[in-house]
Amino acid sequence: MASDDTLARRLLDGDQRALARAISLVEDDDPAGWDLVREVYPHTGRAAVVGITGAPGAGKSTLIGAIVTNRRAADRTVAVLSIDPSSPFTKGALLGDRIRLTEHFLDPGVFIRSMATRGALGGLSEAALQAALLMDAAGRDDVFLETVGVGQAEVDVIDHADTVVLVLMPGSGDSIQALKAGVMEIPDIIVVNKADHPLTDTMVREIRGVLSLAPQRGWRVPILTTEAVRCEGVDDLVDKLIEHRGFLESEGTLSERRRHNLRSEVISLAASKLRRRLERRLEDDPGFQRLLDEVAERRLDPASAAGAVLEQEGAEDAAQT
Amino acid sequence: MASDDTLARRLLDGDQRALARAISLVEDDDPAGWDLVREVYPHTGRAAVVGITGAPGAGKSTLIGAIVTNRRAADRTVAVLSIDPSSPFTKGALLGDRIRLTEHFLDPGVFIRSMATRGALGGLSEAALQAALLMDAAGRDDVFLETVGVGQAEVDVIDHADTVVLVLMPGSGDSIQALKAGVMEIPDIIVVNKADHPLTDTMVREIRGVLSLAPQRGWRVPILTTEAVRCEGVDDLVDKLIEHRGFLESEGTLSERRRHNLRSEVISLAASKLRRRLERRLEDDPGFQRLLDEVAERRLDPASAAGAVLEQEGAEDAAQT
Repeated sequence: MASDDTLARRLLDGDQRALARAISLVEDDDPAGWDLVREVYPHTGRAAVVGITGAPGAGKSTLIGAIVTNRRAADRTVAVLSIDPSSPFTKGALLGDRIRLTEHFLDPGVFIRSMATRGALGGLSEAALQAALLMDAAGRDDVFLETVGVGQAEVDVIDHADTVVLVLMPGSGDSIQALKAGVMEIPDIIVVNKADHPLTDTMVREIRGVLSLAPQRGWRVPILTTEAVRCEGVDDLVDKLIEHRGFLESEGTLSERRRHNLRSEVISLAASKLRRRLERRLEDDPGFQRLLDEVAERRLDPASAAGAVLEQEGAEDAAQT
Repeated sequence: MASDDTLARRLLDGDQRALARAISLVEDDDPAGWDLVREVYPHTGRAAVVGITGAPGAGKSTLIGAIVTNRRAADRTVAVLSIDPSSPFTKGALLGDRIRLTEHFLDPGVFIRSMATRGALGGLSEAALQAALLMDAAGRDDVFLETVGVGQAEVDVIDHADTVVLVLMPGSGDSIQALKAGVMEIPDIIVVNKADHPLTDTMVREIRGVLSLAPQRGWRVPILTTEAVRCEGVDDLVDKLIEHRGFLESEGTLSERRRHNLRSEVISLAASKLRRRLERRLEDDPGFQRLLDEVAERRLDPASAAGAVLEQEGAEDAAQT
């Protein structure tokens, strides 16, 4: 454990390479990664965690790049975790194209990491949340989580943020529809990016209409317009991020919100452990193969087969649900 | 059970309203819905199930609309299930805007349904897969599943298709990057839509480059170009869909593929039952509240808390993983 102790120490000292190594351990579902999170967990909870969500193409990454420039000018250290597979933060040749983002790659005050491997053993959302804890433990003042906001894993991650920012682009009525239909929860801040688009004002009006129907919760959701490629509107957005953080702290809702999020995280981790245990047990189970034969021959439906699987492991009550 | 028997009978007779009602039962996690799936399951397995995936804005819905027009001209009955929250198939005012899709709404040979409620009790992917079975049982010749291809639920659904079509738009290098990085599995057919774009040829070349690196599996993945809004290239795409179906049947891989998919479905259903049982048990558990206090106070990390939760329920071995 000597090497892990050293890794934990270096991580807590803010060493970038230790942080990168630690996240890789968690991503690979290495037990040493989980040990490390356990060890450094008492040092977490200090970072301001901001989730940035929105459809691919809305300009989330460029916006995050601009926010990072702003935060660095205020001398805050930053970490970015992207779980959007279409994000330019994703490792690879693509990065070379994006000057605005790559300018941060040489800055030791900025740590950027992406996760997109859906095959991750422990599940994408579990690994991402552990990675966010490691960034927090490494003393980053601000942690940004970038997601496309679709899919349960993404939602699990974004739910973990203290402040959620939804980025929309003008003309994407579909996103407004999703908000209206309650598919997407009302975020804390809404940004209409690419604001030089002629439909921006219409978009802002439509969003205002949707928000007026939503229940009021003390915090009035601001609608901001930005033009991230030219850094326009970004200072105002950062002001709102700081204001929302102050609101959470003054109302005492930060700890309540975090407790709620941690509850979801614990349940997800436990459920995913249960699932892996089940998968291991069924791997070479001849009884399961016979069940599958019946399902494949359309004699037994999948849900009844699932019930039978659980009954086999003595969980009769679960099989009734 | 008399009313359900009637519903099953009407569903099997292809009644549209019975199908709509049945899907609602499944979506609401009503036990009658699961009973119904069990009852009609022996009559499933006949539909050709095609998954259409791709980022929002790639034109999936318009493409599906054009495919549906083609299939109706060949006198085949069709069902479309969309689990893309940004899709225009999603119910609501938006539909009015899309003439190309709405033309199908009055045709009894076309059944269109969307699911986007991430709060669905049984989980989105479970409900969607049951809905697909119901469409199959209702005698639809072709079932199209539309997803954004991001997130585990979407992947679970698309994995259930006999044929998977990936829709890309020119200039979206990010999607190619996702293919290259192995984030997205290689589909059976790739479509570059909006092919009047100047970057189409470049895109096709890039995709060809990525495919040349992928392992060959007997079926050579075709790359087609379409201009769905003008129905261009759609006949070729339908030919490829039919060709792929023929390939699966002639090679005997259709039943193998379906068995593999049904296996995943049974495991997912069992795992989600386990999760719900866990959530019910923890609902008012004072021991769990004390654990959460420790987590919130940063004295116990979430993964260790999850382990403790499982130990409590006598699943000591799971807690070790």
